[in-house]
Amino acid sequence: MEKVFATIVTIGDELLIGQVIDTNSAWIAQELNKAGVLLRKRISVGDDRDEIWKALDDASKESSLVLITGGLGPTADDITKPVLCEYFGGKMVVHEPTLQHITYLFEQVLKRPMIERNRKQAEVPDVCEVLFNGTGTAPGMLFEKNGVFFVSMPGVTHEMKWLMNEHVLPMIPQKLPVGIIRHRTLLTAGLGESFLAEMIKEVEDALPAHIKLAYLPNYGMVRLRLTGFGQDEAILNQELDHHFGQLAAATGKYLVVKEDLSMEKIVTRLLLERNQTLSTAESCTGGYIAHLISKHPGASSIYKGSIVSYANEVKEQVLQVPHSVIETVGAVSRETVIAMANTAKELMNTTYTVAVSGIMGPDGGTETKPVGLVWIAVAGPNKTIAKSFQLRYDRGRNIDMTAVYALDLVRRMILNGLDDSAH
Amino acid sequence: MEKVFATIVTIGDELLIGQVIDTNSAWIAQELNKAGVLLRKRISVGDDRDEIWKALDDASKESSLVLITGGLGPTADDITKPVLCEYFGGKMVVHEPTLQHITYLFEQVLKRPMIERNRKQAEVPDVCEVLFNGTGTAPGMLFEKNGVFFVSMPGVTHEMKWLMNEHVLPMIPQKLPVGIIRHRTLLTAGLGESFLAEMIKEVEDALPAHIKLAYLPNYGMVRLRLTGFGQDEAILNQELDHHFGQLAAATGKYLVVKEDLSMEKIVTRLLLERNQTLSTAESCTGGYIAHLISKHPGASSIYKGSIVSYANEVKEQVLQVPHSVIETVGAVSRETVIAMANTAKELMNTTYTVAVSGIMGPDGGTETKPVGLVWIAVAGPNKTIAKSFQLRYDRGRNIDMTAVYALDLVRRMILNGLDDSAH
Repeated sequence: MEKVFATIVTIGDELLIGQVIDTNSAWIAQELNKAGVLLRKRISVGDDRDEIWKALDDASKESSLVLITGGLGPTADDITKPVLCEYFGGKMVVHEPTLQHITYLFEQVLKRPMIERNRKQAEVPDVCEVLFNGTGTAPGMLFEKNGVFFVSMPGVTHEMKWLMNEHVLPMIPQKLPVGIIRHRTLLTAGLGESFLAEMIKEVEDALPAHIKLAYLPNYGMVRLRLTGFGQDEAILNQELDHHFGQLAAATGKYLVVKEDLSMEKIVTRLLLERNQTLSTAESCTGGYIAHLISKHPGASSIYKGSIVSYANEVKEQVLQVPHSVIETVGAVSRETVIAMANTAKELMNTTYTVAVSGIMGPDGGTETKPVGLVWIAVAGPNKTIAKSFQLRYDRGRNIDMTAVYALDLVRRMILNGLDDSAH
Repeated sequence: MEKVFATIVTIGDELLIGQVIDTNSAWIAQELNKAGVLLRKRISVGDDRDEIWKALDDASKESSLVLITGGLGPTADDITKPVLCEYFGGKMVVHEPTLQHITYLFEQVLKRPMIERNRKQAEVPDVCEVLFNGTGTAPGMLFEKNGVFFVSMPGVTHEMKWLMNEHVLPMIPQKLPVGIIRHRTLLTAGLGESFLAEMIKEVEDALPAHIKLAYLPNYGMVRLRLTGFGQDEAILNQELDHHFGQLAAATGKYLVVKEDLSMEKIVTRLLLERNQTLSTAESCTGGYIAHLISKHPGASSIYKGSIVSYANEVKEQVLQVPHSVIETVGAVSRETVIAMANTAKELMNTTYTVAVSGIMGPDGGTETKPVGLVWIAVAGPNKTIAKSFQLRYDRGRNIDMTAVYALDLVRRMILNGLDDSAH
């Protein structure tokens, strides 16, 4: 079975000094996979002619599709275009349609005068096919050399995505002999990677060579992913369904959902199905749970809002946590989160409310309430429960995990899976 | 001048199918830079023997330090350790101190039975120096071959960071002839990359060869970064200070701050210096502004909380936006955000309150109020102002930009830089 491989080359000094985090590559990888292309490697190099040249050489030896992002801006440190021109043996020419588009953007959209540097962005090597960029000034470029396709795109995320969707992804099945790659992912909670591996050993051992299993631990949960390769989609799906069913059965009570879904999406869907609503009352997560839910389109159908009571006086004055409770048992306590959840539920009139209060670190811990201690309460139609957790990570990860644990408690209450031991 | 180069090799199929975003590499890159090591390249490969082998070969040809993360878990898809063992010509042996540490973790911390797979994690190639991992079960490993140092670390972020801080960073000046690398970064707002380049052209042209300038556009702002290389820190700092001063002067009124700071950190510092406080009232950003501020340690000194009024009824009932306002001019309007800001300021008793309401997309736009329209109000000690923006990106980026614009308005009001034209 032939496999089509791609390599991503990201260009920019900012990637090498750690000033930006590369989120583009993950998105590109996902889209390539859906299109039947396997990513073989990702290479990041700086704005350096020799390194770019070497990366292109290396990539072309092992892949038939090379996706290049970055280094196409109007300033002197952006050298990708001249290097590509030299690499593919062309010379720079003005691309009239691109020049017209840039002129239009400056005159009609940005309403700013256009200068020589912007005009320069319309210059392209005469050996490429220009890929029109509908969302910015730097055009995409397609080159071919010895049967390998090279695509250069801007590093700006929304421009890169536009070019991928409009040009690159539609081109793939036309130019490359792609096979079929399909994934099945399920989510488990409550059991570590190694124990899970023991539970599903027989299923794993029975997998054929063209189906791979991967373990992806994340926030106290583990995702299990099957990846299958084939030429016939129906047959591959059938095989994957078979092994995936066995895998799901083997994970037993630790199975959360037979999809690759984030915890906030699982909760959102459960609420949508039941026509129910959620609100939050957040201290230590500082609005992060609200953000997780509301960043997804359509959140307004199930999510009403959050009272982020970072300061104790907001807990008291807006969320009606009695001053005496904060004085005696403190802001990180069962009593406080229960009061937070109950008041927020009433204020925002939702089916469920989840409240969190904890010490995320690095400071603020005491002997009886160490850094990482979190109290979470969920108020539902019939009862309010509370549970404490002791996290052991840094501030950022403690916030992440608190959000996931809070949403998991909501999930379990929706499914009636929260017994009174959580009380 | 000798430069010391490093290559990062990240291992894991999850990176190649885009299931996780690599945040480790940016952190490692920053730390290497501070330690005087230049990152030459980042390579990501899957859990595949030949690809790992080739990446190690390639890296060792161009760098004297190779940092490897990932593929050290207890499950069958994690093959980094056997490949390293073979690559460096060793054989696997049990490392007793690591076994004791794993046993301790299972018995005392995790309080779960230990199984054979966990015991296996104490096996290491006999040709490496074991780097004790105080925060997990997989030890770090240091190899040396032809004068190149290779370090293997788990991909789990907090374990990787622990190993870097405890072992790798202290080792660098001892084993490698590192030079000095220093950065100076400033932040500008209100002018595009190409126009900025024209303004600072003379300063850029006057830079010596060992000082590089980079443009980093981000959310309508542009960061300018000087990177200098040298052997004498005092001389290098002096040179950088000179050119950086000229650069800052050339950016004129577009200069925001002469540091590499996020907008939320700039606002936080301004408030701290003035002993003032902030609260937020968020609709379309859904708690994201609150999260941006509160994710940093010490936020409680200046930040009190947020009313996330995602649903209109929360705007009306908690934030007292009159029903008639929402009926007549709508939830995305000057009147609504002014009411949100004023009520939230009173409820949370802060010096400043910023309120946002907008249409982040992809749905919800109308002819008069298209996707991307955002209203932002800032209530301060003396007045409340409001301003509208028209964003042109996808939902995620619209949320990001709204947060930055909102915080920038707070910044300008603190500095009395908001004239009444914003009214």
